Amino acid sequence: MSILKYNIEDILSLEQRKRATLINTLSGFKSANLIGTISETGLTNLCMISSVVHVGSDPPLLGFIIRPITVTRHTYENILSTREFTINHVNTKIFKQAHQTSARYERISEFEACGLTEEFTSSGKAPFVKESHIKIRLSLAHEIPIELNGTQLLIGKITEVIIPENIFSEDGFMDIEKAETITISGLDTYHKTTKLARLSYAKPYKKLTEING
Amino acid sequence: MSILKYNIEDILSLEQRKRATLINTLSGFKSANLIGTISETGLTNLCMISSVVHVGSDPPLLGFIIRPITVTRHTYENILSTREFTINHVNTKIFKQAHQTSARYERISEFEACGLTEEFTSSGKAPFVKESHIKIRLSLAHEIPIELNGTQLLIGKITEVIIPENIFSEDGFMDIEKAETITISGLDTYHKTTKLARLSYAKPYKKLTEING
Repeated sequence: MSILKYNIEDILSLEQRKRATLINTLSGFKSANLIGTISETGLTNLCMISSVVHVGSDPPLLGFIIRPITVTRHTYENILSTREFTINHVNTKIFKQAHQTSARYERISEFEACGLTEEFTSSGKAPFVKESHIKIRLSLAHEIPIELNGTQLLIGKITEVIIPENIFSEDGFMDIEKAETITISGLDTYHKTTKLARLSYAKPYKKLTEING
Repeated sequence: MSILKYNIEDILSLEQRKRATLINTLSGFKSANLIGTISETGLTNLCMISSVVHVGSDPPLLGFIIRPITVTRHTYENILSTREFTINHVNTKIFKQAHQTSARYERISEFEACGLTEEFTSSGKAPFVKESHIKIRLSLAHEIPIELNGTQLLIGKITEVIIPENIFSEDGFMDIEKAETITISGLDTYHKTTKLARLSYAKPYKKLTEING
C-alpha cells in the first residue's frame, strides 16, 4: 500500500475546494445534527452542523463551531437574539433533507423548503425536528470567539432531552444506532453504523471485557 | 414507541455516572482518535480522545476538548511544553488497545502498556501510532479556557498528514471507511460504518444527486 505524505506547504498549495474537502475529513467521523432556531419575528431556521461536541456533563454542556458570515448566519443571529436552540440527531430517514438545509435559503424556513416538520414544546420557543428521534433543547451558555479564523465556539446548557424509551438502558447507556442516528465524513458523505463492541472501564493491567446492551 | 422527556431538573438528579453516560451520548457519533505526545524527558504518551473537531481549513485547524486534571494530564502537560501533538485515527484493528489507553498509567508509556507502536518522522518529535492508517501532526496554535467547567479547547495547526494513497480521490475526497476508521458513541461503544451516500453540493430548489467515489 502506497503512503502519501503531505507537509504544510503541500496542503496550503492545494486548490481551495480540494483542501477544504481533505481537511474536513481529517478529524474522523463527525456527528450529524440539525440545529433548530427561531427569529424574534417568528421565522424558524434549520441548519446542518457536523461539529457538535461534548463539552461536559456537570453542568450538561454541548458546543459547536460556527462561522457567523456563511450560510449559518441566520442560525447564529437567532441564537444570539433568543439565547436558545435545539440539537436534533439526523437519522437514516432524513439525511437527504438534512443535507439540503445547507443550501442558502433567504426568506423561507428550511423546515418548509426541505420537507421537515417543526415540533414545539412548552419549555422554550426554538423548534425541534419532528422526524428526529433524539432531540435536545439548550440555552446559550457561552460564546467563545476563535480568533485564528473568525469562527465561534457556541456552548449551550441542556435544558430538555427527548428520546425514545426503547433505546435507553438503566445505566444511562443510549443505543443511538437503534435510533438510526447516522454519522458524516468530510463535507457530504453519510454513513450508518454497526456496533463492534461496548467495552468495560479501562484500568491498568486489567483485561477489558465486552458489555452487553 | 414511548418517548422519554427529561427536563434539566431530571437530568441533574440522575446519579453521576449515569448522567455522564447519558450526556456523553447526546452529541451523536464521535470521532475516535489517539493523541500522541512526548515529554521533555522523552517519555511518550498516548490518549484516546473522542472530541476532536474540525475548526477550519484556511489555515488548517483541528481542535479538541481536554480536562487538564484527569487522566489526560500528561497529554496536556506534554502539549504545553513541546507545543506539538499527533492525531491518529482509531481503526477496527486497534480499538481495544485504543480504549485501554484511557486507563491511568503513571511511569510507563501507553504505547508499551497497550501494545501499540511508536512511529517517528523527521518533521517533529511527537510520535505517531504505526498501526493507525490516517495520521496528522499539529503544532499547538491556541489554548482556549472554557470557564464554565474548567476544560480547555486546544487547537492545533496541521503541519503533516500521512494517508494511504488508495483512499484518496482527485477532488480531495478521502474514504476513511476504507481506512477502517471507526466511530464512538457515549463513553465506551465502538462502531464501524457503512456508506449511505455522498451527496452533491446543496443549492436552493435544486435536486440533490449522489456522487460516486
